[in-house]
Amino acid sequence: MERPRHQGMAKNTYMRWRLPLVCLLWEVAMIVLFGVFVRFSPEADAHWEEEKRQMNLTSDIENDFYFRYPSFQDVHVMIFVGFGFLMTFLKRYGFGAVGFNFLIAAFGIQWALLMQGWFHSFKSGKILIGVENLINADFCVGSVCIAFGAILGKTSPIQLLVMTLFQVTLFAVNEYILLNLLHVRDAGGSMTIHTFGAYFGLTVTRILYRPNLEQSKDKQGSVYHSDLFAMIGTLYLWMYWPSFNSAISEHGDAQHRAAINTYCSLAACVLTTMAFSSMLQKKGKLDMVHIQNATLAGGVAVGTSAEMMLTPYGSLIVGFICGIVSTVGYVYLTPFLESRLHIQDTCGIHNLHAMPGLIGGIVGAVTAAAATEDVYGKEGFIKAFDFTGMYRTRTASVQGGFQAAGIVVSLLMAFAGGALVGAILKLPVWGDAAAENCFEDDIYWEVPEDEESDVYHMHNPDKPASP
Amino acid sequence: MERPRHQGMAKNTYMRWRLPLVCLLWEVAMIVLFGVFVRFSPEADAHWEEEKRQMNLTSDIENDFYFRYPSFQDVHVMIFVGFGFLMTFLKRYGFGAVGFNFLIAAFGIQWALLMQGWFHSFKSGKILIGVENLINADFCVGSVCIAFGAILGKTSPIQLLVMTLFQVTLFAVNEYILLNLLHVRDAGGSMTIHTFGAYFGLTVTRILYRPNLEQSKDKQGSVYHSDLFAMIGTLYLWMYWPSFNSAISEHGDAQHRAAINTYCSLAACVLTTMAFSSMLQKKGKLDMVHIQNATLAGGVAVGTSAEMMLTPYGSLIVGFICGIVSTVGYVYLTPFLESRLHIQDTCGIHNLHAMPGLIGGIVGAVTAAAATEDVYGKEGFIKAFDFTGMYRTRTASVQGGFQAAGIVVSLLMAFAGGALVGAILKLPVWGDAAAENCFEDDIYWEVPEDEESDVYHMHNPDKPASP
Amino acid sequence: MERPRHQGMAKNTYMRWRLPLVCLLWEVAMIVLFGVFVRFSPEADAHWEEEKRQMNLTSDIENDFYFRYPSFQDVHVMIFVGFGFLMTFLKRYGFGAVGFNFLIAAFGIQWALLMQGWFHSFKSGKILIGVENLINADFCVGSVCIAFGAILGKTSPIQLLVMTLFQVTLFAVNEYILLNLLHVRDAGGSMTIHTFGAYFGLTVTRILYRPNLEQSKDKQGSVYHSDLFAMIGTLYLWMYWPSFNSAISEHGDAQHRAAINTYCSLAACVLTTMAFSSMLQKKGKLDMVHIQNATLAGGVAVGTSAEMMLTPYGSLIVGFICGIVSTVGYVYLTPFLESRLHIQDTCGIHNLHAMPGLIGGIVGAVTAAAATEDVYGKEGFIKAFDFTGMYRTRTASVQGGFQAAGIVVSLLMAFAGGALVGAILKLPVWGDAAAENCFEDDIYWEVPEDEESDVYHMHNPDKPASP
Repeated sequence: MERPRHQGMAKNTYMRWRLPLVCLLWEVAMIVLFGVFVRFSPEADAHWEEEKRQMNLTSDIENDFYFRYPSFQDVHVMIFVGFGFLMTFLKRYGFGAVGFNFLIAAFGIQWALLMQGWFHSFKSGKILIGVENLINADFCVGSVCIAFGAILGKTSPIQLLVMTLFQVTLFAVNEYILLNLLHVRDAGGSMTIHTFGAYFGLTVTRILYRPNLEQSKDKQGSVYHSDLFAMIGTLYLWMYWPSFNSAISEHGDAQHRAAINTYCSLAACVLTTMAFSSMLQKKGKLDMVHIQNATLAGGVAVGTSAEMMLTPYGSLIVGFICGIVSTVGYVYLTPFLESRLHIQDTCGIHNLHAMPGLIGGIVGAVTAAAATEDVYGKEGFIKAFDFTGMYRTRTASVQGGFQAAGIVVSLLMAFAGGALVGAILKLPVWGDAAAENCFEDDIYWEVPEDEESDVYHMHNPDKPASP
Repeated sequence: MERPRHQGMAKNTYMRWRLPLVCLLWEVAMIVLFGVFVRFSPEADAHWEEEKRQMNLTSDIENDFYFRYPSFQDVHVMIFVGFGFLMTFLKRYGFGAVGFNFLIAAFGIQWALLMQGWFHSFKSGKILIGVENLINADFCVGSVCIAFGAILGKTSPIQLLVMTLFQVTLFAVNEYILLNLLHVRDAGGSMTIHTFGAYFGLTVTRILYRPNLEQSKDKQGSVYHSDLFAMIGTLYLWMYWPSFNSAISEHGDAQHRAAINTYCSLAACVLTTMAFSSMLQKKGKLDMVHIQNATLAGGVAVGTSAEMMLTPYGSLIVGFICGIVSTVGYVYLTPFLESRLHIQDTCGIHNLHAMPGLIGGIVGAVTAAAATEDVYGKEGFIKAFDFTGMYRTRTASVQGGFQAAGIVVSLLMAFAGGALVGAILKLPVWGDAAAENCFEDDIYWEVPEDEESDVYHMHNPDKPASP
Repeated sequence: MERPRHQGMAKNTYMRWRLPLVCLLWEVAMIVLFGVFVRFSPEADAHWEEEKRQMNLTSDIENDFYFRYPSFQDVHVMIFVGFGFLMTFLKRYGFGAVGFNFLIAAFGIQWALLMQGWFHSFKSGKILIGVENLINADFCVGSVCIAFGAILGKTSPIQLLVMTLFQVTLFAVNEYILLNLLHVRDAGGSMTIHTFGAYFGLTVTRILYRPNLEQSKDKQGSVYHSDLFAMIGTLYLWMYWPSFNSAISEHGDAQHRAAINTYCSLAACVLTTMAFSSMLQKKGKLDMVHIQNATLAGGVAVGTSAEMMLTPYGSLIVGFICGIVSTVGYVYLTPFLESRLHIQDTCGIHNLHAMPGLIGGIVGAVTAAAATEDVYGKEGFIKAFDFTGMYRTRTASVQGGFQAAGIVVSLLMAFAGGALVGAILKLPVWGDAAAENCFEDDIYWEVPEDEESDVYHMHNPDKPASP
């Protein structure tokens, strides 16, 4: 059934040549660049037997693959199922949520392997990749998925691909400044992933402000089953977050500790989210939006400090606070940002990623500044903050200062980058939908007909299908 | 839209102050207790480098994290997605199933870390936690999720939190008696988790008997898509059960063997469930209730013996029997329990956990009693049953006797504890719903409006939304 | 409610005695055969302590369990959730998709443990099983799930069980010829799993050709939420495919490399699928059928070569091509196969498994033929292709020839086996449905009543349920 209503509107959302062209050209570019630059790391190369001897490894189990692959797969699920399904809560935008998330993440990980590779794994003209690179690429794309949350339902797939291209680039630059120049610790990415990704996305959505968005207000809600689909995303993010925050920590105690701290923070966060969700409603009922999102804030907020000696009770305190901050944000701040600052934040990433990300940066700075050789042990202290080489004289309090500087740099990169990319996305060539067609899969997807006969007569085959 | 029908009823289900108060106070208590008691185990502490030297470990891969973390994550998925989605089968109680399961499990794991910690990981005044403690906390909470299945749809979130507080406490006591005093083996928890959890829940639901529950009978069924959501829960429980039963077994062969035995038992169980589901219906059609539940009974029933030399064919036999017992239970026993014994068991946990749990305890006792040095090897025999220290003279048949005693203790603890907790939950202060509002999310959740316009005009935007 | 329309039709679909009989008899046969043949491998046996000394292993972490168990669990999820939910896209066949997939996979893994065991793990009259056998059994069943995709909605559960019995047997024979007689490498199963499984299934569906299938054409589509359920299957297959292709590769670099290559190929495949899905539609909209299926072709097509030095950019090229081939197949080839060759392929396995499987076999042959000691290192070359013992003089180009022979053998086995099994399934005794009842759960399942009152008055309890 043709629906002429969508043809010939003010906006041209026809994707037939534009989307394929972008996808194919960019993928060809990836192939050329991978051909020139990307090779296997020694641990994934067939020369590994010789490498093993050289590194004095006695067993294949010492291959980094066995330290990190299970965590990698958990992170992978978070990016594709976690973020993808979390955003299916909208009643008519499930295909776009899962499908576009799939598209931009699949492109983004390739571009991230290159960008992060040039900065971090570049040896004699080649980028050498192993399982840790795959995790980092997924991490980088995580920040794109976050920004996607702010503009969900309002952009074309081409806009999303353009944003991904730029955001991955800026992510890699910001990450390089933080990790290499400032020598900041941020294994779970409170600053590099969440603070950067969220404020980047919020800046983009501010610039793409749509004054007439209330025309599609009826589609910006959920239905019963779409809320359950979203809970699949929520739970996978929540359950696997300990893997996320520990995935690239040092082998041994650091990975172990990061998982425990994250587990504790997330558990506390659920309780305060439920408490405030009920408390802030006149009727005292729980709101699925809060449960789907604010319960995850505790994972965001220990992203920097989870691998440090934050301790389980410290983690509980962080989770406790973030559940409150995030839920209060959904109730009071999101409407305020929209009405006063013209920031239309579809998924409320300001509450789930921006504020908890900032808190995470601060908690990380404080935890680092408070570190002592007594708590970490002499060797543990050096290992935890990598105080070796040119950083061997750095003290805990100086490290705390650099951690704080990392927050500021991430914010500045996010605002500047978001403004630039927002301006590019505002060009009238990318095929975004008119305000009245936002939050509607029908614009970019073949949507199956849910005819009345299906709903009514599904199990009453005797009744005629069309009366 | 206000629905005055739910205000001013016989029952006051208003949660606005009660639920937040309980959540916040209890979480503060957790923080204080964690602050006083909980620290990292040596393998998660920054002093690990020194510890490693002391333990003569040559590689970080020897950290317990790498032996158990993948299994932990699988168990974590079972608790939150497995149990949560298994219970979404009810047509109007999906939010409560997933959401309340999330709430009580998130609280329960914290309280379990403390309770189990005091009994099992208490050293010089501190509880030292590592990945094995996280698994055990998830296990403990598993027994609460089981009990939740019996009272699903009939209790308020506060009642569930109160039940969790008490059940976790009693679980830890029962576990201590079995594992430490009786020196019983129960790695997959046939006795400690399933028998205890299920009979506890059945006792609670007996005491909370609602004579007028048929008033909400129309809501106690499933719809097409809710049955598919439930299958997500079923399959994750089924697939990851080998991880569950092997998660805390001894390193090496015991973990390996437990996974294989569980895999076999579960496979056989599917076949007999399908067979009896079809056979027991006049029309010979399969019933999703059986597929969703009885297929899992094989995992429950090798919970004690999976790490023993049960052998693959022994596992098939156990699975074969349990698929039959469980399916027959759903068809004949559940209605009998409800009409004659006034046990209203929403999810049929008697068939999925109680009977298979008992079978599992018995199979464990018999397998232990039949163990010989010939089958296990001299060292293997000692290692499998930990016949060291004060138990070094215990024989296999004596061990079998103690295993059997463990079943009895678990049953007694379940009945006594369930009676006590049921009596507490019967107090008229917890805000449970009236009989006609059971199995209905609307009481405790903001439920999105599924207006006719959504169903009808979803893909017919030309038609007006409200006629 | 009885529905007499389905009784007394031309076809007798009554399962009450036939299905239970098959399930119970076959499961008893499994128990007997397991009792006679199946024991634990040394690494899962309680004698492991002695074994460890004998093998000079210093740590339990050297147990194969820790090398492969995380990958096994990922593969397990792919078989049961991945394939199961991928096939729920049909509007009225979700129970059959998930439920029958569950049934045949649970039976198939048991029979595969025996069949593959006799060929590969048979020592002194016993089949010794460990985690690698579990993975291989899941792999074998994967080929059955693929074939199931071709006949989805058109066969009775008994037919599916009969097909499973034969297909597993033939799979094991074919695998033995390839891996042992031809000494072919095929760790991810492009030939043994995908080419064999898909052409087997296509041959079966050709023989079971239903000329009147258009009578159920209205049921052969999707609805909005069934497409989202299918995306759960798609994403889990996509995310875990790196584990699939690396699960049984050699320890160390080979597993590591296989995961990276697969990750790259799948990422590229998403981009070209999206491009061609949009390009091949007049309206330029994306089609969920393509996104659900063609995005996975990249994983199929590196099944043979992923563990080789295919390199990341080689993987991107393979993924690039397969996304195109598979999407074009869905648009043009599937209708052609149905109208001209009478091959009714419900899920389009020809596009997702058959063609990409063939490409995978060819890519594997070329990659093997092109291998040099320079690229692999002297030791790495021997290890990668296992050029030891009687194969120590085989050259790379000869290996390439044998790989190509493997494709031909797999095709022949698939056609011959499929013809045989198709003929058996055509016998009028298995209870398949009439053409007008295909793609309809109602024939074999108790389907809950979705009464109008549920849809309409779900959240309007004030309105009467039946007007």
